[in-house]
Amino acid sequence: MSGGFELLDALVDRFKLFPGVGEKAAWKMVLYLLNLPEASVADLSDKILQAARCIKKCETCGCFAQNGRCYVCGDSLRDKSVICVVQSMKDLFALERTSGYKGAYHVLAGLLSPMDGIGPEDIGVDKLRQRVCAGAVAEVIMALGPTVEGEATTAYILRLLAPVEVKITRLAYGLPIGANLEYIDDVTLHAAFEGRREI
Amino acid sequence: MSGGFELLDALVDRFKLFPGVGEKAAWKMVLYLLNLPEASVADLSDKILQAARCIKKCETCGCFAQNGRCYVCGDSLRDKSVICVVQSMKDLFALERTSGYKGAYHVLAGLLSPMDGIGPEDIGVDKLRQRVCAGAVAEVIMALGPTVEGEATTAYILRLLAPVEVKITRLAYGLPIGANLEYIDDVTLHAAFEGRREI
Repeated sequence: MSGGFELLDALVDRFKLFPGVGEKAAWKMVLYLLNLPEASVADLSDKILQAARCIKKCETCGCFAQNGRCYVCGDSLRDKSVICVVQSMKDLFALERTSGYKGAYHVLAGLLSPMDGIGPEDIGVDKLRQRVCAGAVAEVIMALGPTVEGEATTAYILRLLAPVEVKITRLAYGLPIGANLEYIDDVTLHAAFEGRREI
Repeated sequence: MSGGFELLDALVDRFKLFPGVGEKAAWKMVLYLLNLPEASVADLSDKILQAARCIKKCETCGCFAQNGRCYVCGDSLRDKSVICVVQSMKDLFALERTSGYKGAYHVLAGLLSPMDGIGPEDIGVDKLRQRVCAGAVAEVIMALGPTVEGEATTAYILRLLAPVEVKITRLAYGLPIGANLEYIDDVTLHAAFEGRREI
């Protein structure tokens, strides 16, 4: 395609592996990079490497830990007796951004998906069980998405934690704020009905 | 946002500078990177740096040159007496992909845009003039986009090359293949009419 630019082609192919990046977007990104001053590209390259080196997963909760310190587990102001189970760091950041939640987290490495060969041992639910069994946990909040895989994973964890005496809750399902009732799908509408609250 | 992850935030901010990448896409890309094995990130980081180091601009035509060699100027099979003037490497690659063009190129560093303070000296038109004046050039093909800036730049180059005896052409304007006539804008339709050919 680009006649003898092995490096260029290799970089485009590499960028195409990024989520949501296709052939054209990858080209755009690479051409943008090549038009930058070399020092600025070196800085980016260094930042990427540093991030991969310094940001690891917290042994306790699976959250990112920069230089070995996970900011949730390391924060003495956060309530460690409440654990919110999320599917990924993306969801954790979404909750952190908006909810004012002041408890701890448990970040799974994805959701159960037998069709893709992803079992309980792949997503780290046993670590959650050990953590809850170790005591001092009053509530586990299941914050997995209301999808087939999310529900299946929640059901699995529910059964796993059944022998342990701990309160297990899940996020409310219902109408998204600002929604137009006529456009809401039947299942959500049903869930909103089921979960109606006195006002 | 991500509580104490300076590296993470810095990387997201950096990715947001890429063309067409917003806050959410940048987060997605960074989280994808952090879930990769460290070796694979190191490889990407290295590829980026190498590309910036090894891919420079050709002294003659402004095309990318890997390890000092521009593949167009270095190709003895290409006709150096025809120069196709393009706005960017993106456009050059588009032409290379599709047109079967076997001449040389001249890659400008953008288009004239007095509103943004971009003048002739910024986009390297003088190099083009020197190249054409040096002789042995039979035809200059203007392949800048039919936009205001593109037309202005073409007009400027036309005037610049007026004293030199050289044939100057531009790409045909007209209906894109597969187009539905009723949806074509008036200016394009007019250009198609003007440029009609006997069959």
